[in-house]
Amino acid sequence: MAPIAPESKTKIVRSDNRAVYDRESIEKVLDSTFLCHVGFTIDGEARVIPTAYVRIDDAVYLHGHLKNQMLNALLDGQTASICITLTDGLVLARSGFKHSVNYRSVTLFGKAEKVADDEKAALLDAFVDFMVPGRSAALRKASQQELNATLVLRVPIDEAAAKIRTGPPLDKDPDYATHIWAGVVNLETRIRGIENCPKLNAGIEVPEHISKYVAQETIFD
Amino acid sequence: MAPIAPESKTKIVRSDNRAVYDRESIEKVLDSTFLCHVGFTIDGEARVIPTAYVRIDDAVYLHGHLKNQMLNALLDGQTASICITLTDGLVLARSGFKHSVNYRSVTLFGKAEKVADDEKAALLDAFVDFMVPGRSAALRKASQQELNATLVLRVPIDEAAAKIRTGPPLDKDPDYATHIWAGVVNLETRIRGIENCPKLNAGIEVPEHISKYVAQETIFD
Repeated sequence: MAPIAPESKTKIVRSDNRAVYDRESIEKVLDSTFLCHVGFTIDGEARVIPTAYVRIDDAVYLHGHLKNQMLNALLDGQTASICITLTDGLVLARSGFKHSVNYRSVTLFGKAEKVADDEKAALLDAFVDFMVPGRSAALRKASQQELNATLVLRVPIDEAAAKIRTGPPLDKDPDYATHIWAGVVNLETRIRGIENCPKLNAGIEVPEHISKYVAQETIFD
Repeated sequence: MAPIAPESKTKIVRSDNRAVYDRESIEKVLDSTFLCHVGFTIDGEARVIPTAYVRIDDAVYLHGHLKNQMLNALLDGQTASICITLTDGLVLARSGFKHSVNYRSVTLFGKAEKVADDEKAALLDAFVDFMVPGRSAALRKASQQELNATLVLRVPIDEAAAKIRTGPPLDKDPDYATHIWAGVVNLETRIRGIENCPKLNAGIEVPEHISKYVAQETIFD
């Protein structure tokens, strides 16, 4: 990832103590999940859509149907705004004003470009492995028809910033003397279990890459 | 909420079996969490920012500092695009092409308007109670200075659609005959625990609204 400087779009003005611009912190958040919200415009109006992504080096990749409205809009020369957010806890202060959320988020900006046909198959595998490591090797390979029907975009990370809040509530000084309970309710995403496909053929065991994934106590960390 | 018809911005073209337009389903998703991603434009460029919201009747409300860039941008007459997404499971099919996610999401559109000064206090309480029911009654009330420093916007839900996917992978017919494992990894958000504020005065017990909240097995359901 190129050096990431806070430019006009990502310079965090308020709550500046939460701003993080170093590459390592930004990549760590980007690599903690697989779902982002993409901001784009159509006829000058903002739209937001959730979609899967994969980060590889200095770019994130998006994919979808060849006629996907968002992907095609992003190819008109506009700059995409992509946001990744993980919610870690509720910060319950002594006043409503000081209530907050412990979270990790990255906002990045870049101009999308179409990925060449001969790069698509490897990138689509990367999407799957970004969700569950080791999964793509276990799958039926993409057919030419599927590759033809899929558009993959590369969004180079031209500008990015992370915003991270951790720790207890920060109340106004006089409020610490009150008899109001304050603290943090920590949240986590867990795996509730796996359900075999009801059409699974007899004798197919849960493969190692799945049992390893499911053995994680929490995900998105 | 006004009758919600699929108009140009929210008509779901592909995966139409996932589209939901009835008010009850949309409200249920909106009331399952408190964090949204707001899409807006500045100088014609898209931006996305995560923020807390509260739904009341036919509108969602946003709040922040009086000089908050997003809130002020939304007051220039543009239409806000607001997206709420909950991730329920990884849908692991027999081909990468058919991999998917079980999720609940709502995208809504509306033109923001400033809330009158005398409505702010009640609305700010509503934000807190939307996160943790019963919390606002336990807090130090907002001061006039805090109210003056806070901007609250009402975004009437002019147009909205939910997209909900549940259930097992849907593979291409010939793939069901393969020896590839397929299924769903279900995810859930749980409360990991509560941490008292380190500056809590001696003798302050965890109040009932918190112990009740923490007793929930899962949240965002």
